[in-house]
Order: sequence, then structure tokens, then C-alpha cells
Amino acid sequence: MKEITIHAPGTVANLVCGFDVLGLCLTEPYDIMKVRLLDKKEVIIRTTDNYPLPSDPALNTAGAPLLEMIGGMQREIGFEVSITKQIKPGSGIGSSAASAAGAVVAANELLGNIFSKEELVRFAMFGEKVASGVKHADNIAPCIYGGVTLIRSIFPLDIIPIPTPALFVTVVHPQIEVRTSDARQILRKEVLLKDAIRQWGNIAGLVAGLMKSDYDLIGRSLEDVIIEPVRSILIPGFHEIKKACRAAGAIGGGISGSGPSVFMLSRNRETACVVENVMKSVYDRIGLNYNSYVTTISQHGVTCLNTL
Amino acid sequence: MKEITIHAPGTVANLVCGFDVLGLCLTEPYDIMKVRLLDKKEVIIRTTDNYPLPSDPALNTAGAPLLEMIGGMQREIGFEVSITKQIKPGSGIGSSAASAAGAVVAANELLGNIFSKEELVRFAMFGEKVASGVKHADNIAPCIYGGVTLIRSIFPLDIIPIPTPALFVTVVHPQIEVRTSDARQILRKEVLLKDAIRQWGNIAGLVAGLMKSDYDLIGRSLEDVIIEPVRSILIPGFHEIKKACRAAGAIGGGISGSGPSVFMLSRNRETACVVENVMKSVYDRIGLNYNSYVTTISQHGVTCLNTL
Repeated sequence: MKEITIHAPGTVANLVCGFDVLGLCLTEPYDIMKVRLLDKKEVIIRTTDNYPLPSDPALNTAGAPLLEMIGGMQREIGFEVSITKQIKPGSGIGSSAASAAGAVVAANELLGNIFSKEELVRFAMFGEKVASGVKHADNIAPCIYGGVTLIRSIFPLDIIPIPTPALFVTVVHPQIEVRTSDARQILRKEVLLKDAIRQWGNIAGLVAGLMKSDYDLIGRSLEDVIIEPVRSILIPGFHEIKKACRAAGAIGGGISGSGPSVFMLSRNRETACVVENVMKSVYDRIGLNYNSYVTTISQHGVTCLNTL
Repeated sequence: MKEITIHAPGTVANLVCGFDVLGLCLTEPYDIMKVRLLDKKEVIIRTTDNYPLPSDPALNTAGAPLLEMIGGMQREIGFEVSITKQIKPGSGIGSSAASAAGAVVAANELLGNIFSKEELVRFAMFGEKVASGVKHADNIAPCIYGGVTLIRSIFPLDIIPIPTPALFVTVVHPQIEVRTSDARQILRKEVLLKDAIRQWGNIAGLVAGLMKSDYDLIGRSLEDVIIEPVRSILIPGFHEIKKACRAAGAIGGGISGSGPSVFMLSRNRETACVVENVMKSVYDRIGLNYNSYVTTISQHGVTCLNTL
């Protein structure tokens, strides 16, 4: 039977001033997935890693989107999915989204690309629902479209790719647990109008900066006066890292997703590597274990490694 | 002595989802101003219209910025300003900003363009302070830069021109008084986080839509879930006008500034004229007097009519 191998990359959602609406796709890390077409209406999940993720497809972030996809089709088809996770669950860089997005992009390739990217996002959102109870798209969309994406609205779904200049991304993942539900619960339901105005001035500046390739404007706009002041208390060393990374030449950055990973953008690889060393030295001194990555914004999203 | 004549156009601030940060420059209506260079440190204001505006330069929106400008200069110079206002004060389309911006652009021309546009905005903001007590720039900036401008931040001042496709603007000014102070006072100081998120999704979509010349995206993004629901109660017929204009083909629109003028954007002049008739018919039926305009976004801002 037909089989395809893909890389499903990590993503950074809640892009500083773009809480709940802006995300970007990383080139690395990525999960490796093999998806095989079956001639029976079933979804089989096999894992080749040691993460304790459910193998019942209805409860698995890769399985649920595929069940949704084949549920609406006349043909007798199914998928066998083998997942090697390299994006640690709970890291804040879109681990569940990678499985969901990877599964639907691979399945679509096996079916001759009958679904649009937007339809794939809709399927993949069922994976996020399994993972967190909420059908959000701010990791799924950049994982499928690549680049930076704006989710202007979720109901109805409105995804807008935002062109970007070349940007290098440094990510550090301190090995602590921040539960998404906790990170959401500590947010206030009401915010000051003056803070909201500042935030929408910043997101407008960020979109303009990305589309104009104006790095200074991107840097000035990477400011979050609403979410970061609350959530950063859950991330040891956050303010020290941010200050030191900016001083080392990073354009700016913040919490990735709902944490605990922290990301920084830089103009070139050299600076991104210096920034990585800054992050490492802070966590070395605090005595926290971490993973770190120096990568770029992927313009491709999920990548198919073989043709059919 | 050297003299220059300029047109200082009206502007639309608080551009729907861009409350306090986004504004656009109209081609019409405009004030006509003649500014003459004097060889003495003084500012003289002459008005040729019947509006009861103060002629004391320190209290006049054109005079205060010029006093600020000459106050910082070594040279013995001053200006005589003659103003024919065609933008009615209190209309919500930047009447005070036109006088302030027109005065400083003309003065700068007479001085050989020694100041940058950003410096001119700083001077002109003293006119807004005289007019409303607040040094805001969301009418001043589009009046001086032309097009659509984002004020990402006011302290420090950060003005970002946003490129736009061709857009036609229909404005209706019902002859009622909405005091800016009242319009501001009825706003809540706190807003729901979920509404703020929707608003920043919309402004990000609007900026992307303008820069991509994507009229549909501009239309979908022209939604204000925070300010308009409150302020529209001060404007008779607002919801009926908005609904009917959209049905007649307008891309979208809303309250201009803090009202009472209402504006709508269209792709072409034909639609903009149909939209004007829709607006007229609503106010004819309500029995309210009005002025209306069909115009375009001016890419120039204040225009000098003669060279020196």
C-alpha cells in the first residue's frame, strides 16, 4: 500500500502581542511520521517513542483528525500512522499540533491532495480538542501553512498568511511543567482598555513590520502588556533571559505558547547562537535542565519526504 | 514676504478596530490656509470664516504649534496665518488637526523644509492639546503623511505609514453635536479579554488586508466589538446606515473619530455614490440635516498649492 513519510515541525503560538491569533512555524524540532493508506475504514496509531500518549485513535491527537476526515468520505479507506515524537509534549512549541497537522497533511498527500489547507486545519483542530479540550488553530495553522499565520477569527475560521523576512529563532525549553489549563486560569477575564489599545497598536506594528521587512519595527512591536506580565511568573528566569537576549542582539521574543519554552528572534544565525548561549547560561546558573534550539522560520510547514 | 497657500484635508481617526491608533487622510473636504513668513517672533491668526474660533495664537489650534516651532528657533521669524475653514469643527473628521497640520507643513515649506514629518507631527500635537486637552496624533499623522497611518505608540511617538490599495470614502455628517469628552466618558475603562483578542485579530487582519490589497479581508476585518457598540448609541440611525451601506456594496466602515460623522469605504466611485444615497435617504427619513462627501484616501496629506 501507499506510504508517505513526513516531518511535522514545532510552532510558536501566542506570538507576544498576538495572543490567541498569531503563530509561526519552526524548521526544527519536528516529529517524524509515517502514514500508510489502508483499504478499510480504520485508523491505527503506532508510537515508536517513549511518551505515554494514547494509542486509541479517538483519544490521540493524530488519530482524531483522521477519524474526522474518513468519517465524511464515501470510500473505504483508513490510515496506519507511526509517530516518532521529537517535540516533547508540554514544551509549549506545539507538540500536539504537530501530530495533528502532520497526520492530515500526509493523509491528504496519500489521497491525491483533495483537501485545501483550510480544510486540513479544520480536521487537525479535532486533534487539539483531544489534547486540550479546545479547538484552537494558532499552532495548527502555521504548522500546515508555514511562515507566520494570523487566525483573525476561529468561528468562522479565517487564516491569513503574513509574509516575513528571514528570521532566526532561538528556543529554550526549561524542563519544568506548566499546565496549559493553569496558564489559562491565571489570566484575568477583563483587561484595561488602555492596555488593550497598546496591545493592538503593537500587533498592527508587528504585522506591518513583518510585511515591510522592517526589523526595527518588528522589535519595537514585540511587546506584550497583557499576557506576559501574568504568565511570566510561571517561568523561572524569564525576565533575566529576555533582558539579556535583547542586550545580546535579539530583535525580541517572549513566551512560546503557554510556556515554559521561551523564544527569541534574531536577524542572523550568529546572533541567534549568541542568544542561545545567553539562555543556557541563565538556566545553568539557576540549575535547571533545558533543551535549546537555533533554527529558522519554516516557510513550508509539514514537509513530505517522499513522493508517491 | 514669502507666502504659501495650502489645502489641509480632513481625516478619519479611530478607524473601526483601530481605536486610538489608526487613521486615514481624506482628499476632501479641506481647509484653505495662507501662511506668510514674518521677520519678527510672533504668530498672527486671521480667520475668513464664521466659526467662533479663538484668534489668540496660544489658544488657536493652528497658532499653538507655530508658537512651539518658533520658540525653539534662534532666528527672528514668525508667521501670519489666514484660515478658511471648510471642515466644520465638531464634525469628527479632524477639523482641529487640519488647522494644526496645515500650519506646520506650510511653515516648514517657508523655512526650506528643515523639519521631518515626525517633527511636524510633534509640533502639531500642541494644536490638539489646545483643542481637546490631549496631545493625540491619530488625526495629525494621516493629515501630514497622507494615506493610512498607524500610531503604534504615542510616548515615544512611533508613526508607521500603512500602504493601501485605491479606496473610495463616503462620509456623512449628521448635524448633531457629539462632544468628544462625552464620547470618551461613556467608554468603559475595562474590557473583556475575549473582546480585546477579537479586536487585535481584526486590526492585524486590517493591516494585512490593506498591505495585500485584499478588499475582502479589509471588509471582514472592519469590525469593532469594543468602542462602536457603546458610541453608536450617540449617533441616530447608525446601525441602519451601516447595514444598508454594506448591503449596497460598501466594504465596511464605522464612526469617524468620536462622531457624529459616519464613513464607509468602497472599491470604486460608483459604489461610493450609491452608498452616499443610502446614507442620505436614512437621514432624510429621520429628518436630520447632514453634509455628505464622496472622496478618496489622499496619499499626499497637506498639499502646497504654490512653490516659492
